[in-house]
Parts: sequence; structure tokens; C-alpha cells
Amino acid sequence: MAENLFEKVVSLAKRRGFIYPSSEIYGGLANTWDFGPMGTLLKNNIRDSWWSKFVLSRDDMVGLDASIFLSPKVWEASGHVSSFTDALIDCKNCHYRTRADHLIEENVSDIKAEGLPVEELTKLVWEKKIACPQCGKHDWTEVRKFNLLFESSIGIIEEGKSKIYLRGEIAQGIFINFKNVLDTTRVRIPFGIAQQGKVFRNEITLGQFVHRTLEFDLMEFEYFINPKDWEEKFEYWKFQMWEWATRDLKLKTENLRWREHEEHERSHYSKKTMDVEYKYPFGWKEMFGIAYRTDFDLRNHSEKSGKDLSYTDPETGEKYMPHVIEPTFGLSRLLGVILFDSYAEDGDRIILKLDPKLAPYKAAVFPLLANKPGLVSKAREIYDSFRQDLLVAWDDRGNIGKRYFAQDEIGTPFCITVDFQSLEDDTVTVRERDTAKQERLAVDNIRNYLQNKIDGR
Amino acid sequence: MAENLFEKVVSLAKRRGFIYPSSEIYGGLANTWDFGPMGTLLKNNIRDSWWSKFVLSRDDMVGLDASIFLSPKVWEASGHVSSFTDALIDCKNCHYRTRADHLIEENVSDIKAEGLPVEELTKLVWEKKIACPQCGKHDWTEVRKFNLLFESSIGIIEEGKSKIYLRGEIAQGIFINFKNVLDTTRVRIPFGIAQQGKVFRNEITLGQFVHRTLEFDLMEFEYFINPKDWEEKFEYWKFQMWEWATRDLKLKTENLRWREHEEHERSHYSKKTMDVEYKYPFGWKEMFGIAYRTDFDLRNHSEKSGKDLSYTDPETGEKYMPHVIEPTFGLSRLLGVILFDSYAEDGDRIILKLDPKLAPYKAAVFPLLANKPGLVSKAREIYDSFRQDLLVAWDDRGNIGKRYFAQDEIGTPFCITVDFQSLEDDTVTVRERDTAKQERLAVDNIRNYLQNKIDGR
Repeated sequence: MAENLFEKVVSLAKRRGFIYPSSEIYGGLANTWDFGPMGTLLKNNIRDSWWSKFVLSRDDMVGLDASIFLSPKVWEASGHVSSFTDALIDCKNCHYRTRADHLIEENVSDIKAEGLPVEELTKLVWEKKIACPQCGKHDWTEVRKFNLLFESSIGIIEEGKSKIYLRGEIAQGIFINFKNVLDTTRVRIPFGIAQQGKVFRNEITLGQFVHRTLEFDLMEFEYFINPKDWEEKFEYWKFQMWEWATRDLKLKTENLRWREHEEHERSHYSKKTMDVEYKYPFGWKEMFGIAYRTDFDLRNHSEKSGKDLSYTDPETGEKYMPHVIEPTFGLSRLLGVILFDSYAEDGDRIILKLDPKLAPYKAAVFPLLANKPGLVSKAREIYDSFRQDLLVAWDDRGNIGKRYFAQDEIGTPFCITVDFQSLEDDTVTVRERDTAKQERLAVDNIRNYLQNKIDGR
Repeated sequence: MAENLFEKVVSLAKRRGFIYPSSEIYGGLANTWDFGPMGTLLKNNIRDSWWSKFVLSRDDMVGLDASIFLSPKVWEASGHVSSFTDALIDCKNCHYRTRADHLIEENVSDIKAEGLPVEELTKLVWEKKIACPQCGKHDWTEVRKFNLLFESSIGIIEEGKSKIYLRGEIAQGIFINFKNVLDTTRVRIPFGIAQQGKVFRNEITLGQFVHRTLEFDLMEFEYFINPKDWEEKFEYWKFQMWEWATRDLKLKTENLRWREHEEHERSHYSKKTMDVEYKYPFGWKEMFGIAYRTDFDLRNHSEKSGKDLSYTDPETGEKYMPHVIEPTFGLSRLLGVILFDSYAEDGDRIILKLDPKLAPYKAAVFPLLANKPGLVSKAREIYDSFRQDLLVAWDDRGNIGKRYFAQDEIGTPFCITVDFQSLEDDTVTVRERDTAKQERLAVDNIRNYLQNKIDGR
């Protein structure tokens, strides 16, 4: 199965309304995807799980929702205008353009080329005699850097157009509001500011489904610390990230590993970076990242804006520029991971083994037969009683087997069937997704039963 | 109070972490705002209330989350490239640029100038001898149209740059996925597809806080209908919109009214548009909108894409192009409305009279004295017991009066104080925000008490 898991999941995602290729009726727009009805529910559940664990349930974290448009000065100070680049190379023969580091890594085993200087990349491509994957020739340009920030302009001002960037990360909105948050809330170091939202990167991608796209949803926080604590906090957040992945999202441990970035791979602001990698059908790649950004950003914004962004400890009086640990979670990427991780087959049955907390629907309710008003109204009654606080699906089409099959494919953990016995003794059949086991439960007990399963009891 | 309500709310919003001017440390970026810790919580609660009422609790609605980047062909087909424009005029003397319709409406009472042809706008400005608000001269250019779509380009492709637009409405993502949703879910007309997300408009604004900004959050759905039902469905959704505003958001009825758009005001796609207007400190302006978009969009996308987007009724076999009713809700705008609507003063006490469902914190927990470990640990115990499922604040600074004052300003409906009696009989003081009344409650009863208040019982 593993070898065509990728195609199977992409197909299921499309077929059952998780993820559609964007702008499809116009021939598509490469590396953009739209989340369908099931995908939107699942994505919101992942988002809410993250927000609950990392923000709402903590005393030392507050939320923020900053603009996508920031002053261009922010991106100059942050170093993104000068350093947020990909190194690209063109084939002179067929004009194929690609990322030089990817080209090298795919052709030469055991080289981590990301972040190497352009001269070195050029040298490697020539020395290793790497052929163009499109035309097979070896006739390359030199490697050149291209900035990843999308540009636009606020056009309706008298002095002409004013350049603006779409944010290439959400962290800067946090840094420039650091003092606002400090002044208007009761936070004290150590504390974090968390944010969730769209990010845009004008980059060449390998078309790996939602793994790398032109726009994507990030969930991220900056955890502000006294620099002397950085190693301890780095380890602490590594633990929390792993815990969320394995305990809350229930990702399979064998598909996860930590990998530390080599020096040349790290972003310009980072002193130490580690990824939680996932074993995608296309190999081990980043799922989450954690970076020790030091005081790089606050210090630069202090210098460039002329505003003092340092922190004074109210107890010790110590004044210092806070350092930050930054855990980053790609939400749209994670949705893909969860589909890969939960996809299972049992004969010709396809099952998404989603944790009940994440599943779009917590249960589906069926009347055994759609043409028996007694069954339908009884089932409807149960369905309506859950809809107040649990999302449930209704299905009265085809036979029960087909309905099970359909619910398995979207990961609904329980199917509740109202049959003739239900009309007599107020019990129903509850069928469990992963085991296909059925048991008879009193209608009054179902709410409790489902809630326990959702809470993992 | 009304005359300076605007300044008071903007100041409170900044002071207490609801809304900050964006990029402030760099001198700001006009007409962009960042939502602080309190604003983010409130905004998420409004979003969740909308999603719950209009999507999760309904059988005839599904969610979608489409890209901000769509194929440029989408915006050509939708008419936005040719018709999504503002009519601007320049002062030749001082180069002040503004929207011609706004200029006219502010200077000539009883004219609704929005949407009038440029020739007519030019004529009005000259006939009425309207002076430049900046230099006082009457020396204007002709009125010209400017497109509101922000442009960018996907720059890293060999054939050169490919133009792309930031979405100027979220509806197009719904229309181009209509067939995907139809094919992959069990919806049948009438049904709706709902979406929430960022929208961008490159427009001149009057700087009215979050009322009109360069980027903003929209919540919207397209309700697909048989055209013969349009008037009935239009009325139905008008009712639902009003109900959400008054029953769920608890906005004051006297601050709300319906207004129908005149023909020249309507967007290019609409056959009938009505706004729920709110009485802002700067006058009656749009809060929500509802438009009957007919089959304008599906028909255009069918023609331009060559894909048949018509619908066949599975029961009658009738085949037709669905029409749509579109209710639109500006989320960031609504956050401003709710702050204006809930702002109250009682002597020098400032109170945000937020509905408990919307309030950032449902309650605050205080130990009477911060230096008595017994009080602190008892209060902490209560605080921790709620945090599992209700967001509560902790405060142990200053005296109780100051803590009440601070919680009133952010709209926390209840304050719970643990005092020496609490240690003896397990009761606490619960103080209600709007009335400032206090009662003594058993700790065991508080959870229930709060939940009833949140549920409006």
C-alpha cells in the first residue's frame, strides 16, 4: 500500500470533500488547494486542539491576530527583504527552472544542500554533472537567489504606488506588538504570544499535495525568555510539541522523528533549529519546527524603529532584551499528515482512523429503512438531540453496508442505527469504525458513551 | 457621551488589548489593525457563534475554506477585473485624492452617490461647487475608476511573471467549487456553502477604525436556490441575520435598521441588496449585507470555464442554473460594532456589557489578599477547576476595587473572590458586572451558575 498511498489519499481527499485542487474548473492554479466541507471541519478541529493546548489552557500564553499587511519597514528590519530567498537554477537548453538544493539532493545522496552559498551550489551541480530532469542535458546557468516574499502595492495614494509584502511568516506581527502586549496585559517573562493565520511564499514547490504550497495556514508562537534559560525552554517545548503530535493528534510514533538542522540549513535568524519530521509517502520531511531565534528580531526592531523593546524584570529589576523560542506548526500541511497517518484499508473497505476529537462527524445516525416513517422519526429525534453540541451526520440512502462504507471513508467513529427493536425498547445499534464491532445501547446512554470516547476514556 | 464614543472606544481597545494600530512602532500602516489578546478571544467567539448558528446547527449548510489565490480567470469571469472599482477624484491644487461619492455625500445632504456613473459624479462635484477638504480650493480632475483588487505575481516561473489577485470577496471560492461540493457531499437544493476568511480591497477609506480597512475578515455564505423561491428565501435569511444580531450578539435594536440599496449603489452582480445598518458614532453605515446575486456567477463561470454548473433536481428531474442569496458578515467590522454597542459608563467606571457567550473571559478569580497562601491556594484551586472548559482570568494585584474595574473594562461578566469565610464554609463572593451586585455562593454551585448565565438562562 505504501507505494501508492500518496495517490490514494489525494484521491480520497478529493472524492470525499476534504481537499480539492484549487481553481480546478479553470485548469487549476499550481500548488494551491481548497478545503472542502470535510476538510474544513477537520482543519477547524486541528486548529481548536492547538489553540486549546497551547493558548487557552495555559497561564503564560496570550493570543494575537495581526495583519497580513505590515509596514514594509518590518520586513527590512527582520532581514526578510535581504535574506528570505531560494537559490534557483535554469536549464539553458529547455528553460526548466528549479531549486538548486532540491536538484542536488535528489541526484546526489547524502548531501543536505539547503542553505549552501550559491557558488557552492553551482559548483556541486557542475561537478556532479547533474542532468536536467526535463530534457536530460547538462547545460545550467549559475545559481541565483530569488526572494520568497510576494509583493503588492497599496495603489491608491497620490505619491504613487507604495510597495507592500504579503507576510512570509506570522512571527513578525508578534514581534512588532511585543510592547503593546506587555503594556496592555499582565504577562511576565517567561510568556508566549500565539497566532494562527495565512502565510504566503512565492516559491518553487515539488507538488507534494498540501506539503508545500503558495499560501498556507500556520500556527505559531514566540515564547519570550531570559536568555540564560534558552536550553531548558527549548527542551520543554520540544516535549510539548511531541506530546501534542502523539497524545492529542494520535500520530503514529514510528512515523515521527526529530532532526536537527545543520548550520547552513538554518534560517538567518536562528541559532538552533529542529524539525519533527514525518514519514510522508515521499520521504521524511518537516512536519513541525522549533527555532531558537535569540533576540535577533526584537533587537533589530528596536534598532530600526528606535523604540526600546527590552524588558525589565519587575522583581529583580534586571533589564534585558528577551530571547525567543519559536515552535511552528503548519496547519494545512498537518491536515495532509493526518490523512496519510490515519488512512487504512481492510479488504476493500477504506477507513480514516481519525481520533474522535478530530473527526469531522462524531457519529452518523441512520434509520434502518428510509421508507418507514416510524424509524425515520425516531432516528431524527436522536439526530436532533445530538446536534445541540455534537456534530453528527444523517444518512438514509442505500443499504446499511454502503452507509458504513461512506462513514468509514470520512472517519466517522460511530454509526447509530435505529431499527424496529428501537421502537419497542428504546435501544439502538452502535457500530464502531475501526473494529466494525456492533453493540446494542439504550438511547439514553449514547450521549455519555460518545462523550467518553471523544474524551479518550 | 455619544459625541466622543468613537475616541473612547478606540482608546479602550488599545489600552486593554482588543485592537492595536498595526505596525505602530514603524509609524503605522494606514487602515490596518492588529487584534490583541482580548480582541483575538472576542473575535474567535464571534466567529464561533456565527459558524455554530449558520453552519454546524443546520442540515442545509456545509463549510468551505478556499484559497486566497485563485486563477486570474476566476476574477475575469466574475466581472471583478472590469467592474470592481471605486470612482476617485484628485484636487489639482494640493493633490488630495478621495472617493468622489464620499466627497459628494459628505457635502450634499440627501444624495446617495455610490455607484453613479463617473460623468455624473464629475458633474455633481462641479455643479455643487464642492471644495477640497484639504486645501479649500475647487479645482478638481475628472472622476476616474480604479480597480480595488490587490495585484501580485507568481514570480518564479520561466515564462515570466504571472499576474494574480488577492481575493476581493470570498464568494468566488464558493462558486468555483460548487460542482465539487455537489459531487462529493449529499447536499440538495436549497443548500448553502459557508466560508470565513481574509479579504483584501485596495481602497481609500475614511479611517473609521475597523469599519473599512485594507484587509478584513469576512463570514459569508451562498445559499443556492431554485430561482422561483428567491423572494421567500431572501426574506427568510433577512430574518435569520436580524435574529443573530439581536438574540445572539445582543446588539441594541435601536442601533440597527434595514436599508435597501438604490439601483446605482448595487454591485454589478446583484439584483437586490439590503444592508443591516448600524448607528456608528460616525453615522448609520453598513454592518451586514444580503444580496440576491441571481445566477450571475454560476452562469459566467459555466460559460467561461466550459464546465456545466447547472443543477438537476433528483426528484423532479428539472434542470436549471441555481440562483443564490448571499448574506455577508464583516467579522473585523463586527468586532468594532460590538465594542461600540457594549460600551457603558457608570460614574468613572467603564463597562463593556458583553454577552457572557462573547466575553473574552467568563469569570475572574481573585484571592482577597495576595499574601495569604491559604486564600491564594483556595482561589487557585477554583481557577484551575474552571480552566478545563471555561476561560477564566486570574488576578491578585492591587485591591478588589481595582480588579473589578479592570475586569469591567474587558467585559468579564463575573468576579469570584475567595476570602477568609471561603476557607471555613467553601463559599465565595460572586459579583456581577453590569449591576455590581454581589452574592455568596457555594463553590460547588459556581460552575452551574456560570453555565446558566452563559446559556442565557
